[in-house]
Amino acid sequence: MNPFRFILTDVSRNHWVSDWSLDSETLPLKTSQPWKIRKTRLHGGLQDGVDLIEVDNGVFSFSVIPTRGMGIGRGSYRGHALGWDSPVRDLVHPAFVELNDRGGLGWLKGFNEWIVRCGLSSNGAPGTDVVIDNNGNEAQVFLPLHGKIANTPARFVEVQIQQEPPFQITVRGVVEESMLFGPALRLTSEISTELGSNALHLSDQVTNLNSTPEELELLYHCNYGPPFLEQDAAVLAPTRTLSPRDARAQEDLTTYDRFRAPTEGYVEQVYFYELLGSPQTQQTQVLLKNASGSLGTSLHFSLEQMPCFSLWKNTASQENGYVTGLEPGTNYPNPKRFEREQGRVVVLQGGETRNYALTLAVHEGRDAVRELERQIEALQRSAEAQVLLAPDARLSAAG
Amino acid sequence: MNPFRFILTDVSRNHWVSDWSLDSETLPLKTSQPWKIRKTRLHGGLQDGVDLIEVDNGVFSFSVIPTRGMGIGRGSYRGHALGWDSPVRDLVHPAFVELNDRGGLGWLKGFNEWIVRCGLSSNGAPGTDVVIDNNGNEAQVFLPLHGKIANTPARFVEVQIQQEPPFQITVRGVVEESMLFGPALRLTSEISTELGSNALHLSDQVTNLNSTPEELELLYHCNYGPPFLEQDAAVLAPTRTLSPRDARAQEDLTTYDRFRAPTEGYVEQVYFYELLGSPQTQQTQVLLKNASGSLGTSLHFSLEQMPCFSLWKNTASQENGYVTGLEPGTNYPNPKRFEREQGRVVVLQGGETRNYALTLAVHEGRDAVRELERQIEALQRSAEAQVLLAPDARLSAAG
Amino acid sequence: MNPFRFILTDVSRNHWVSDWSLDSETLPLKTSQPWKIRKTRLHGGLQDGVDLIEVDNGVFSFSVIPTRGMGIGRGSYRGHALGWDSPVRDLVHPAFVELNDRGGLGWLKGFNEWIVRCGLSSNGAPGTDVVIDNNGNEAQVFLPLHGKIANTPARFVEVQIQQEPPFQITVRGVVEESMLFGPALRLTSEISTELGSNALHLSDQVTNLNSTPEELELLYHCNYGPPFLEQDAAVLAPTRTLSPRDARAQEDLTTYDRFRAPTEGYVEQVYFYELLGSPQTQQTQVLLKNASGSLGTSLHFSLEQMPCFSLWKNTASQENGYVTGLEPGTNYPNPKRFEREQGRVVVLQGGETRNYALTLAVHEGRDAVRELERQIEALQRSAEAQVLLAPDARLSAAG
Repeated sequence: MNPFRFILTDVSRNHWVSDWSLDSETLPLKTSQPWKIRKTRLHGGLQDGVDLIEVDNGVFSFSVIPTRGMGIGRGSYRGHALGWDSPVRDLVHPAFVELNDRGGLGWLKGFNEWIVRCGLSSNGAPGTDVVIDNNGNEAQVFLPLHGKIANTPARFVEVQIQQEPPFQITVRGVVEESMLFGPALRLTSEISTELGSNALHLSDQVTNLNSTPEELELLYHCNYGPPFLEQDAAVLAPTRTLSPRDARAQEDLTTYDRFRAPTEGYVEQVYFYELLGSPQTQQTQVLLKNASGSLGTSLHFSLEQMPCFSLWKNTASQENGYVTGLEPGTNYPNPKRFEREQGRVVVLQGGETRNYALTLAVHEGRDAVRELERQIEALQRSAEAQVLLAPDARLSAAG
Repeated sequence: MNPFRFILTDVSRNHWVSDWSLDSETLPLKTSQPWKIRKTRLHGGLQDGVDLIEVDNGVFSFSVIPTRGMGIGRGSYRGHALGWDSPVRDLVHPAFVELNDRGGLGWLKGFNEWIVRCGLSSNGAPGTDVVIDNNGNEAQVFLPLHGKIANTPARFVEVQIQQEPPFQITVRGVVEESMLFGPALRLTSEISTELGSNALHLSDQVTNLNSTPEELELLYHCNYGPPFLEQDAAVLAPTRTLSPRDARAQEDLTTYDRFRAPTEGYVEQVYFYELLGSPQTQQTQVLLKNASGSLGTSLHFSLEQMPCFSLWKNTASQENGYVTGLEPGTNYPNPKRFEREQGRVVVLQGGETRNYALTLAVHEGRDAVRELERQIEALQRSAEAQVLLAPDARLSAAG
Repeated sequence: MNPFRFILTDVSRNHWVSDWSLDSETLPLKTSQPWKIRKTRLHGGLQDGVDLIEVDNGVFSFSVIPTRGMGIGRGSYRGHALGWDSPVRDLVHPAFVELNDRGGLGWLKGFNEWIVRCGLSSNGAPGTDVVIDNNGNEAQVFLPLHGKIANTPARFVEVQIQQEPPFQITVRGVVEESMLFGPALRLTSEISTELGSNALHLSDQVTNLNSTPEELELLYHCNYGPPFLEQDAAVLAPTRTLSPRDARAQEDLTTYDRFRAPTEGYVEQVYFYELLGSPQTQQTQVLLKNASGSLGTSLHFSLEQMPCFSLWKNTASQENGYVTGLEPGTNYPNPKRFEREQGRVVVLQGGETRNYALTLAVHEGRDAVRELERQIEALQRSAEAQVLLAPDARLSAAG
């Protein structure tokens, strides 16, 4: 049977649905698992004009924000919150975000999602870059923090519901980051989950709409607070090399994989990983587990697609934003110029499409968490982890 | 009896009311005074998406603009207009204001209110500042004119109507100016008036939402054109010292407290006051009166809360914006860096709240105006006014 | 008989109509020519909140975009498309355009119209300028590409339909580009066509709302792709002088008036014209015709109003934006500072209004196209065209 499809937004036809919902009662499926999906437009404050899609597969719920580049707002798995509490409390409409404000840190005025893409043309720390302008000349431009995609609304959004096992619910969106005389990149994102599942899948395609080569930087900023993040929570990853970004990260190098309780005045620490993956598939996974090992969340991705992994530790006070970011990407979040010099900026030929897939799962109970640990240990067997004592000049621009 | 309450916006519940009204017929109170309050959403042009609340206490009407940081658009007391005619005619939605445009003067594209708050993290002339960035390092940032609060929409708005004398009508709004790795300041503003009263009260709280110290600059830019401003109108204030901001203000120092008719090619003149207040309460007041002394408007505030007062004279042509600004604040509107050096930037500890109150009243008839003058004369008795002939290096960065 | 009038937007009365239409059935006129006009608000994606007015005179259709400064989106004459395919596919709401982004090229994120005005206070390449600030001092400001008018929504919009021959349909809009202490310029635009006509008329007034002199730069960026633009399409213009903007334009000087097929990696070439007009009226015209001469489109305007004409050749690949721009203006699109030095910035006295008129017509069939060519040849008779081999230092800042 074909999946049920409902189109929420199609800008090319000026089609847009303000409010809509569907659930296990209005679309009966051959399963007893209750589920629902609801689309709303938010009104008032900084959220005014933001479209929100809330998905609940019965045990796992999360929200997709088409207006913010198909980012994922918050999730909840059997009552365990996925995401974090940012000082920015609302889902900020891009109209209120001036990316170039405050030395290029304007992006931080809208930052509070669980999963936010950084890119597409650039991401990472603000910095100047040299581009070819409309006259064919080199021109210096300033690239603000983390690029534009999270503040670009989707021009097409649809919901698909598979009407046979495993009853996958998919939100599909198309976001275009384009301009004349510059990058024209299309993100086609499928965000899906199966009824009753503990997992969320992001299956993204990035297409260069130009006929000439364009650069791509893509990083998934996946952010966690309690209950996954807490004192003595830990991150486990099959590691080829681990290095501190800078002197600040060096300070706590011996405990790089462990987290503190909320700490007044804590300054962020960032660690750059080169990961190990399956020799056959280059698939890898990273685990964040709570202190007792009774709860964990994992990221699964391909090192061919995303060879870089960054760990952002920001165990500041709860008020200031107690959070850690697990960040697989095509690059490390350095200024783009540095990443290009290091050969880590993807070049898409004219019309070329690349795929990026990321699965996020939640694991409840010691056995389930331990099973993930075993898988990571197995991946680690191919090489011993090297922990570099100082920033690696290849990986860090701030070292 | 509890006040009548109606919530117009509550972003945390995605509650927002597009259009609403209430008046003495639909909510009868034990008074014969007619009144009304009306909430609308504006559509079209630069106003598209702006929320407006119009309050009329029977003799005094004014508008509150939640979308523009709870600023006060225009007022009218018994037919006397409060406010001014700016070249910017519409209530501009923040989406159309790029604060960093034109050397940091983008704020002026939306400036036409009667009362507009400048702040919260910074206000005053544009300038570079040094902040601590997410890496704990000093970073240079550019702070545009008068900060963000006037271009930040309220996330919570409610109306309260007291159902017993003095029948106070209150519009309460919450605006948050926050970002990760930066200021997170909450303004909770209560804007109120009593039925039949000649006064408007602003009772503002500013709370540091972070657990770490944050800076605050708050200035109330209260702006008047005719009929309060006219040739030979005058400003009266109990003055400890008065000094010109710069050479331009020095030119007309002998007539600093008197106003010109609209004057082609007039360039603004700004005077900085250190005021005198009641020795007991530190309360002070300032009066703007018309030429004949038959009409006046006063500001009442505490020098403990707002030790700085600036007088902005901009008696340009009617077309270019014939206006004067009476500006009580925590600081003078110099670049923030200068104000910090002079010890005039407020530091809020983590979680700390400070209160700021301002009452604006209108006085009709010579007797009423004369009574205000007498009160100001009484405050002046504690010291003789010193008029400095040149800019005071402590007060003016432009001197 | 008075024309039928319908007001779609009047911000001063908070009047705005979301969706509306009228046609030959709902407003019968004494003609058999069917016609229609439709106003919609767009929703979703980058178009969210954009107002669109589609006009069809029976043979010629086009769209007016009040939200984007009364620009003209796309047209179609008897099935021939007017406009082009930009990498920016949607009608972008100004809230998503940060003009100062990317070295002042943010305007290109919203650029896809058939006809877009550049101005009003400035247009042309980004650059620094010196203005007089609120303190009467010289201040350096950065002027981004092509100014603000195309990203400023109209505060008044009405439709007028003449109820007797020639049954003109007019969309009239008022857009104000204003700020305190800066330019305050009002554009009043009447965009009209007659039923069954092959022509579109833009009749614009620009008024200086200030009482003091203000500068004006106005350029009409009229952009064409296929079927008017194709390999061996040509541009014809009565030419006093023709000069290349820069070395890149110099490369193909001998074929400046002919176009290439879509060309991978093509870098734009710009030519500056001083045109010849009728000695009596100073009216002139420019023709773009397809390769076979069976289809053409012409621009008609006054050299008194717009003495400058620029030809923008951007025959890049179809994907990257295959387009040519015919650009009559008060100036050439150099940085404003250069244009001022060359005496090409208009100064409007306080309250002064200037008129700018532009007619665009489509010509089907060899005879019709040939007739236009004859008219241009006639205008050419008064002087021989001088083709300068190198950039003219008077006309080009990039030479």
